[in-house]
Amino acid sequence: MTEKNQQVLLARRPTGPIEEGNFRLVETEVPQPGDGQFLVRNLYLSLDPYMRGRMSEAKSYAKPAEVGQVMVGGAVGEVVASRHPKFKPGEKVEGPFAWQLYALSDGKGVRKIEERGGIPLSAYLGVLGMPGVTAHIGLLDIGQPKAGETVVVSAASGAVGGVVGQIAKIQGCRAVGIAGGADKCRFAVEELGYDACVDYKAGPLDEELRRATPGGVDVYFDNVGGEISDAVLLRMNAFSRIPLCGLISEYQHPEPRGLRNVRSLLVNRIKLQGFIFSDYLQRWPAALADLTKWVSEGRIKYRETVAEGLRNAPAAFIGMLAGRNLGKQVVKLS
Amino acid sequence: MTEKNQQVLLARRPTGPIEEGNFRLVETEVPQPGDGQFLVRNLYLSLDPYMRGRMSEAKSYAKPAEVGQVMVGGAVGEVVASRHPKFKPGEKVEGPFAWQLYALSDGKGVRKIEERGGIPLSAYLGVLGMPGVTAHIGLLDIGQPKAGETVVVSAASGAVGGVVGQIAKIQGCRAVGIAGGADKCRFAVEELGYDACVDYKAGPLDEELRRATPGGVDVYFDNVGGEISDAVLLRMNAFSRIPLCGLISEYQHPEPRGLRNVRSLLVNRIKLQGFIFSDYLQRWPAALADLTKWVSEGRIKYRETVAEGLRNAPAAFIGMLAGRNLGKQVVKLS
Repeated sequence: MTEKNQQVLLARRPTGPIEEGNFRLVETEVPQPGDGQFLVRNLYLSLDPYMRGRMSEAKSYAKPAEVGQVMVGGAVGEVVASRHPKFKPGEKVEGPFAWQLYALSDGKGVRKIEERGGIPLSAYLGVLGMPGVTAHIGLLDIGQPKAGETVVVSAASGAVGGVVGQIAKIQGCRAVGIAGGADKCRFAVEELGYDACVDYKAGPLDEELRRATPGGVDVYFDNVGGEISDAVLLRMNAFSRIPLCGLISEYQHPEPRGLRNVRSLLVNRIKLQGFIFSDYLQRWPAALADLTKWVSEGRIKYRETVAEGLRNAPAAFIGMLAGRNLGKQVVKLS
Repeated sequence: MTEKNQQVLLARRPTGPIEEGNFRLVETEVPQPGDGQFLVRNLYLSLDPYMRGRMSEAKSYAKPAEVGQVMVGGAVGEVVASRHPKFKPGEKVEGPFAWQLYALSDGKGVRKIEERGGIPLSAYLGVLGMPGVTAHIGLLDIGQPKAGETVVVSAASGAVGGVVGQIAKIQGCRAVGIAGGADKCRFAVEELGYDACVDYKAGPLDEELRRATPGGVDVYFDNVGGEISDAVLLRMNAFSRIPLCGLISEYQHPEPRGLRNVRSLLVNRIKLQGFIFSDYLQRWPAALADLTKWVSEGRIKYRETVAEGLRNAPAAFIGMLAGRNLGKQVVKLS
């Protein structure tokens, strides 16, 4: 193999908003698999908000990324060389292959992709991957919506939120999105089937939200935290649930704003639970089976924002944290 | 009956900290029971933080108290006249008899007290009443502590918190209290059996808390909210639980401070749940049976702060909200 590998490293930890200078693109040799390893050529790289957390040193559920090391991340690719008994060249795989063109793997955290007609490989990073499973587990296991209830979703048109809203509809719920901008809200209602979507950049959020949730809120699937969540807290019903999936409004700020309307948690006897997809590995097969069925039936739709080329990954990541993507953000690598 | 009734009314709603002027003492006629009613002479009045919430108009789990009406509250008393088939003069009862010397009741929400040697009547307002049951349900049903885990309790020496810490010890947990002042902390450790108690008025809270919880925190029974809870959030372990019982740090402030370290809820996959004793009526008998047994065996101790006379109830209530009581605050009425 004469081609070179390319990698995006964490060059320095961010202290405030991320800049391109936090990353560095380097060229290295393509590694060769040792015994029990295989080599993957990455085709699509996944960009996800959780990566922002990994760039910081603060205690989190996973160890922080190391400065000077390749940025962590999921990708789909093709096995191009293998000394692993279970993976053969030509097979498509999804796994923690990081921000690079070629990755070595021992198979840990890797799943084989059975390609289906009409479903692009990149979908296994989104609706049929971690974000889709996150939506499924968070809404159904933690949110436990019942038909007729109102489910509110922040970052409603994102990779996770877009799936949450559609599963809520499949469950017979009223689905109300919150998103930034008229385009995203139109997409949420017209494409994803939300009953209503509140544009938090437009009018007074409290008022718009009141109008969109005349019966209050029974499940709030939270991806953002901050002011938006405080507005939703004022609409929560007694015995409502909050699957806490993300806090994207806080990731870019060194001093957290937090939540003000904590009183609602008490007086409404709300159950709020933080969760992470990786704690529910035993739930993945059933969740993926549901999602694959719903996607095949056209009951779950999805959209992707695709950046081209590894060198554009940092800019795409920064854009995603600022909400400039629609649906799942991926980077096409070849 | 020639004696007069006395009642404390809600004179005007508070806009900030409560003052005596929010209340008014009036003298009225002692009412006579109608068909299906009985008359109670109150012996002890319970003062509880939740009453602060009822004085405001903000939406809560119960309707706000009405201006010009008798302040709501629990009391123990003696039936002195009855036209109710199930209650007879001379019987001791506990119920929502309000801030007054005499109360009419139709039996709703009333339990009969079987007096036991060595247990004063006032205990049925505390350890063997709503606060004790609240501690039992919140810690065991919601907190679900396992032996060897660390349980942190804010307002650790209060009517609820004092019971929580002792039940935690009975469950084989490490119990760590947080209280205001050296006296309360000494009481928590020496009398109630906490393994440690952090005086939030003394040193740097974060540091003291770190020292008291070397293995992190598995259950945080929260009575206070605010800065104290933010400090505890930084010590929470993965998959820890927060029974949210009260927010006494916020009750006196028109603008809520809320919580800053919400990120801990996410990264540690914490389950936080607001709860109110009245949602668990079916759990009361079992909880009271446990508590009665533990009190009889001397495994649960309790302390009371007793004010004398109905006219001193407002001052005692204000003092309790400022943390000037030790253990359960009651008012002796006769």
